Amino acid sequence: MLSREDNEALTRTNAGTPMGELFRSYWIPVLLSEQLPEPDGAPVRIKVLGEELIAFRDSEGQVALVEPRCPHRGANLFFGRNEDGGIRCAFHGWKFNARGECLDMPTIPPEVAPRMCEKARIKAYPTREWGDFVWAYMGSRQPAPELPQMEFALVPPSHRHVSKKFQECNWAQAAEGGVDTAHFSFLHQPVLTSDEQLAEKAARATRGYSQKTMSQDHVKWMRDDARPRYEVKKHGSGLVLGASRRASPGQLYWRIAQYLMPCHGYTPSATEGQTYHGQTWVPIDDENCWVYVYSWNPTRPLTDEERQSYRTGGAVYPEMDGNWMPTRNRSNDYLIDRRMQKSENFTGIVGVSEQDAAIQDSQGRIADRTRELLGPTDIGVVQFRRLMLDAAKTLAVGGVPLGLDDAAAYRVRAGGIVAPEEADFDQVMALRFGDELGRIDAAVQS
Amino acid sequence: MLSREDNEALTRTNAGTPMGELFRSYWIPVLLSEQLPEPDGAPVRIKVLGEELIAFRDSEGQVALVEPRCPHRGANLFFGRNEDGGIRCAFHGWKFNARGECLDMPTIPPEVAPRMCEKARIKAYPTREWGDFVWAYMGSRQPAPELPQMEFALVPPSHRHVSKKFQECNWAQAAEGGVDTAHFSFLHQPVLTSDEQLAEKAARATRGYSQKTMSQDHVKWMRDDARPRYEVKKHGSGLVLGASRRASPGQLYWRIAQYLMPCHGYTPSATEGQTYHGQTWVPIDDENCWVYVYSWNPTRPLTDEERQSYRTGGAVYPEMDGNWMPTRNRSNDYLIDRRMQKSENFTGIVGVSEQDAAIQDSQGRIADRTRELLGPTDIGVVQFRRLMLDAAKTLAVGGVPLGLDDAAAYRVRAGGIVAPEEADFDQVMALRFGDELGRIDAAVQS
Amino acid sequence: MLSREDNEALTRTNAGTPMGELFRSYWIPVLLSEQLPEPDGAPVRIKVLGEELIAFRDSEGQVALVEPRCPHRGANLFFGRNEDGGIRCAFHGWKFNARGECLDMPTIPPEVAPRMCEKARIKAYPTREWGDFVWAYMGSRQPAPELPQMEFALVPPSHRHVSKKFQECNWAQAAEGGVDTAHFSFLHQPVLTSDEQLAEKAARATRGYSQKTMSQDHVKWMRDDARPRYEVKKHGSGLVLGASRRASPGQLYWRIAQYLMPCHGYTPSATEGQTYHGQTWVPIDDENCWVYVYSWNPTRPLTDEERQSYRTGGAVYPEMDGNWMPTRNRSNDYLIDRRMQKSENFTGIVGVSEQDAAIQDSQGRIADRTRELLGPTDIGVVQFRRLMLDAAKTLAVGGVPLGLDDAAAYRVRAGGIVAPEEADFDQVMALRFGDELGRIDAAVQS
Repeated sequence: MLSREDNEALTRTNAGTPMGELFRSYWIPVLLSEQLPEPDGAPVRIKVLGEELIAFRDSEGQVALVEPRCPHRGANLFFGRNEDGGIRCAFHGWKFNARGECLDMPTIPPEVAPRMCEKARIKAYPTREWGDFVWAYMGSRQPAPELPQMEFALVPPSHRHVSKKFQECNWAQAAEGGVDTAHFSFLHQPVLTSDEQLAEKAARATRGYSQKTMSQDHVKWMRDDARPRYEVKKHGSGLVLGASRRASPGQLYWRIAQYLMPCHGYTPSATEGQTYHGQTWVPIDDENCWVYVYSWNPTRPLTDEERQSYRTGGAVYPEMDGNWMPTRNRSNDYLIDRRMQKSENFTGIVGVSEQDAAIQDSQGRIADRTRELLGPTDIGVVQFRRLMLDAAKTLAVGGVPLGLDDAAAYRVRAGGIVAPEEADFDQVMALRFGDELGRIDAAVQS
Repeated sequence: MLSREDNEALTRTNAGTPMGELFRSYWIPVLLSEQLPEPDGAPVRIKVLGEELIAFRDSEGQVALVEPRCPHRGANLFFGRNEDGGIRCAFHGWKFNARGECLDMPTIPPEVAPRMCEKARIKAYPTREWGDFVWAYMGSRQPAPELPQMEFALVPPSHRHVSKKFQECNWAQAAEGGVDTAHFSFLHQPVLTSDEQLAEKAARATRGYSQKTMSQDHVKWMRDDARPRYEVKKHGSGLVLGASRRASPGQLYWRIAQYLMPCHGYTPSATEGQTYHGQTWVPIDDENCWVYVYSWNPTRPLTDEERQSYRTGGAVYPEMDGNWMPTRNRSNDYLIDRRMQKSENFTGIVGVSEQDAAIQDSQGRIADRTRELLGPTDIGVVQFRRLMLDAAKTLAVGGVPLGLDDAAAYRVRAGGIVAPEEADFDQVMALRFGDELGRIDAAVQS
Repeated sequence: MLSREDNEALTRTNAGTPMGELFRSYWIPVLLSEQLPEPDGAPVRIKVLGEELIAFRDSEGQVALVEPRCPHRGANLFFGRNEDGGIRCAFHGWKFNARGECLDMPTIPPEVAPRMCEKARIKAYPTREWGDFVWAYMGSRQPAPELPQMEFALVPPSHRHVSKKFQECNWAQAAEGGVDTAHFSFLHQPVLTSDEQLAEKAARATRGYSQKTMSQDHVKWMRDDARPRYEVKKHGSGLVLGASRRASPGQLYWRIAQYLMPCHGYTPSATEGQTYHGQTWVPIDDENCWVYVYSWNPTRPLTDEERQSYRTGGAVYPEMDGNWMPTRNRSNDYLIDRRMQKSENFTGIVGVSEQDAAIQDSQGRIADRTRELLGPTDIGVVQFRRLMLDAAKTLAVGGVPLGLDDAAAYRVRAGGIVAPEEADFDQVMALRFGDELGRIDAAVQS
């Protein structure tokens, strides 16, 4: 439960807000590289952290991210022509490059133009392409910090798959879904099933995801223990969150997630050798967000079957249209099927991503955290909120928030393991990752 | 004409407003029984008096009406699973029964759960099924008052037909249409017609309604006398409103409506033996309402032809889609046909219900009663407003508003009759109903 | 650049605002005559200067423009029956004529009606039909001023074509597009073209318009000189705005526009003998306007080919649907084609009107003029703003704004000409129009 002030602080990210400034101090994904397929191609409208911008790939292939307002008479550069080193306003031909500099103002007398160019500069944010996303740095630090060394971006392109999905709620409650691993005991579970049918029904409920990543035992343990015990540790770029459930006698099934500053989450299922999945929640405004989604396997290229599954709604990907809008969304109640809910799975909704979105969106456009009844399984959520609010305060008083100056601290993994019940969290982490915080430099071959 | 304050008082029904509290002190219909066809079936979203709720039929067949917010983390119980005595939240499995009690909180340790359950209670309103509607009592009295003994609910199901229709304006101006019986001289009338064609044209304008309930004389008398004389009497559950028009020499044609607290109206046409019709206006919010519609015949089952007519737009029923949205509505100007308006009827709109909705909606989302020019034919409207505003004041000072403690006072009828012009209103009432207030106990065989 | 106060003053036209009062002091078009094709036909909803009105043609053919609220109980007269000298409310039959007088109140006793009729008067604005438009005078002067003697309205109907188009932005930035003739060097220009292909590509970009009105040289001169020199002169009804570009050696290509109070603009292309075009920007509200469009040839009837071109998107007409909504509009980004923008023309949008609308709309619903960087080619825009703001001030202190008392001062023309570079603006005007201000009385045979 949060005070009204803290709930506002957590959820508001426009420029000038504490959380808005925190997000702006890090590099964040703002679009897929594939959205700008070619130099001098079509510009794209972007809204991020409440700011309306346009992105275009210039003649050298560099991605520009600029305010869309031509300083001459306020026409929108989205309608401009992307040509030869910059975008040219369609109204009177003023032209701007990726750094926001005015390169040409043909309506202005040449003797005046140089001086006027200075005033005609538009806001432009530096960008980088990293892991097939375009990242932007919207903060004020000179030079900008380093890009986070997240593993999906470090592996060869053949080893990863990336996409994004639109979500119709505030970023924070979507992110909370990532640290709250307890909900798998309900939200993604089958109903009315014998142990024999469990795996098959779970596969139908998760569009095959459970089948590819979990044994029947995994599903059963999650179903049978709705109160996982949480262990949370802070590290150089965020939190590692373990939750253990009763497994076979003498054993615990551990699911270990990572939350990395300011808005990245890794899912807790992958056992050694399996493909990893992550999500990055980027506010469009306070009531909608883009979720950047990525999957990677450190040791091998992804298979065609894996990619095909991700493109059609497997794993943490929803079924979507060509604009990354999930087919199942607020407007159609996620195509909930009440007969399916009766006999097949808890939600009557197909797909892990869709189930998550439905229940997170249902908390409201911005969840009201002033009325909650939290318990031990909500420890991950509580720790996440504290992490974010503390980091915003640190930044506000001139400090360096977690991870900002330590790009290498992002080299961590998340995943699952079955361990003896007497092993403590450090031991479990060592067992699964070869390192108590999940750092991959300590274990390059998992 | 009302002051701005009185217009607000009459039209605003959210919790805490005077009229909102008055509505909440009575049982009111909130959905059709048929919307919840089976135990443990799909929940339904409801908005009533500005409150967002969900309704579901539990395993015992009892209808639950509860706030949709799970007290754990605020997920919406609409997406929950309706199972075995309650609805279970799809996020982490908390479960609630029809009384709003938390039956299960699987994420909470068993030793804490009993204490926490107390805090986890959700708002729940008692419901009853009565006359094929689900009624709710949203007030605070313990025990709740009795259900009103309206005749349509007292007769066997075979003798009644019920439905509802969506209307895109404030409840009060729709209700005023029910007490204003003067408008039949224009709104529902044919134009450019000889006396011979009158009945036929009226039937086309009213989708056959006039043909079934009125003679050519009735229509003609209404056409020819646009200034009916009003008589209004207050009784134990509301107002009886008579309006007389010149008929054959020495006779008057009386149309007598009933308005019952807080939002029920009976139509004034039925002559002895005919089927009766009523409407109940229930605010969704201040700019929209559901009109619950019902027809009944005290002495015989309704015929298939009658039911078929009601299902396709006869009597006070509009032509509708499967969600009770009239085919003719605000978005399409009620499919007004200007050629029909020229040669056939006053509105160029087909259907009594549709004509009413068009003109009532046209008064604005909330009619501005501070600018009006009322005359003698508006006496019914004036009395209706006074009745409602007085009742709200009575309740506010701790009194018992009309009818609340007298369920039997709802046993009244409305209808029409031709009477000698020397008969006064009491005599006319006695002639038509065997009772000066239209009470049916005095005349069970009309 | 304007102060915030001046930007508000320029753009806001609701009743009571300075610009709103200025607009109301002139006759302005409010619909096409063809929208009311017959006496006693269907009423039409109108919104103009923020006021919701209805128009209907009465039995004598006079166009009524009245407030839609029936003073009895507030029903909307749009649903009324237009019959025999007035519109009759469908609710209870009150009837009003084109002067807003109540002709009949059938629910009111005859002895009371005459007195009540006085109170029941509704607001009505005088109208005139002039040049196939319906004009309204919404001001308070008695008698109303004369209609402006604009040439398109003076010529025989055979010599003119009129229409209108919906535009999704404030009137003033659309009007600025009319006085800013510099933008033709970009907004309507081809790209990547040899001189040989120029005319052909320009024709494709302008849907044939350039081909009909300009030589290849005209297009080339506009392309090659993006900094026309402006000359602006004030006359009895507005401004004449000349802009010259370098043409063949020793010559200048002059394009001369007219801006007439309060919201009429004539385009600058027509050379002697060609058909003229004009536009009148009428605010619907502060975020949308109707642009009334007209073409006329003073010396001959328009050809079928011309009319056909105007109906399908030629000249200053867009391609539209039956409700005058351009096919290319805000909702679909004006069907911008990025490949066309690369190789064909600056916008990738087809049609002069569409290109104008796209870039004007892109300035925002109401352009922010507090942040601009104006130069010499913006002199027309600056003068236009000054003209309007001064006129509003003149009116506010009881003065007579420009043109209001001089209907004949509207007898002017605009157009283009190639002239020796040593000719000054007065000489150029004399050459092109036989008069230094473009007055047609001085040159009836151009």
